Amino acid sequence: MSISLSPAILELLKNSDDLMPAIAQDSLSGEVLMLAYVNTESLAMTIDSGFATYFSRSRNQLWKKGETSGHLQKVVSISIDCDGDAILFQVEQEGSACHTGEFTCFHREIYPANKENS
Amino acid sequence: MSISLSPAILELLKNSDDLMPAIAQDSLSGEVLMLAYVNTESLAMTIDSGFATYFSRSRNQLWKKGETSGHLQKVVSISIDCDGDAILFQVEQEGSACHTGEFTCFHREIYPANKENS
Repeated sequence: MSISLSPAILELLKNSDDLMPAIAQDSLSGEVLMLAYVNTESLAMTIDSGFATYFSRSRNQLWKKGETSGHLQKVVSISIDCDGDAILFQVEQEGSACHTGEFTCFHREIYPANKENS
Repeated sequence: MSISLSPAILELLKNSDDLMPAIAQDSLSGEVLMLAYVNTESLAMTIDSGFATYFSRSRNQLWKKGETSGHLQKVVSISIDCDGDAILFQVEQEGSACHTGEFTCFHREIYPANKENS
C-alpha cells in the first residue's frame, strides 16, 4: 500500500522533494517539544496514522516517534507555514519527548541565564 | 566590533558552522510564530541586542526580524535542544510575525480539517 499526500496538500509545499523541519508542540501546555524532519511520505503516514512520523536523517529512514520507546505523539493538528517549507504538529505527548528523559528537548536555556557569558 | 558566541554556548552546538533552524514562539500565548534559520553570528547578535536576528537563506545575509516592517521580536529566552542543532526563541512579538499579516506563519491547517483529502 502506497501512502501519499493529497494534491491539495502537495500544492501548499514549496518543494515536495525537500526534507522539511517539523516542530512538535504539546497541545495541552503549549510547550515546544522537539524539532525533527519530515518528507512527504512521513507526513502522509502521520496524517494516515494520527501519530507523528518523521524522517531520520541519521538513519536515513522513516521514524515513527516512540515506536520503540513508547513515547508516541498523538497528532491533534498539523499546520504548514506561509511559504510551505516548515510544519507544525500539535501533539499529545506520551511520556517525554526527549531521549534524556526531559519532557522537552529544548531544556538547555542559554539566555538570559548565561547572558553574562556572551 | 565583532560579535561571537561564548565558548560555553558554542560547546552546546552540534556544528557551529551549520545553519540551524530557529523556532520563534510567542512568550505570552505560547503560539508558534515562525521558523527561520540562524548561524552563530546571528545568534550572537540576538543575544547581544535582545532582538531575534536570523540568517536569511534567500538573501544570504543577516536579517534582524522586523527591522524594516517594525515587527520586531523582543527575545525573552533562548534554548538549545538536546543535540545542539535547533534553537527556540521565546519572544514578545511586535505586530504580526507573518508577512501575510497573520499573527503566526503557521496559519494553514491541513489536519484534521482536510483529512478526507489525504
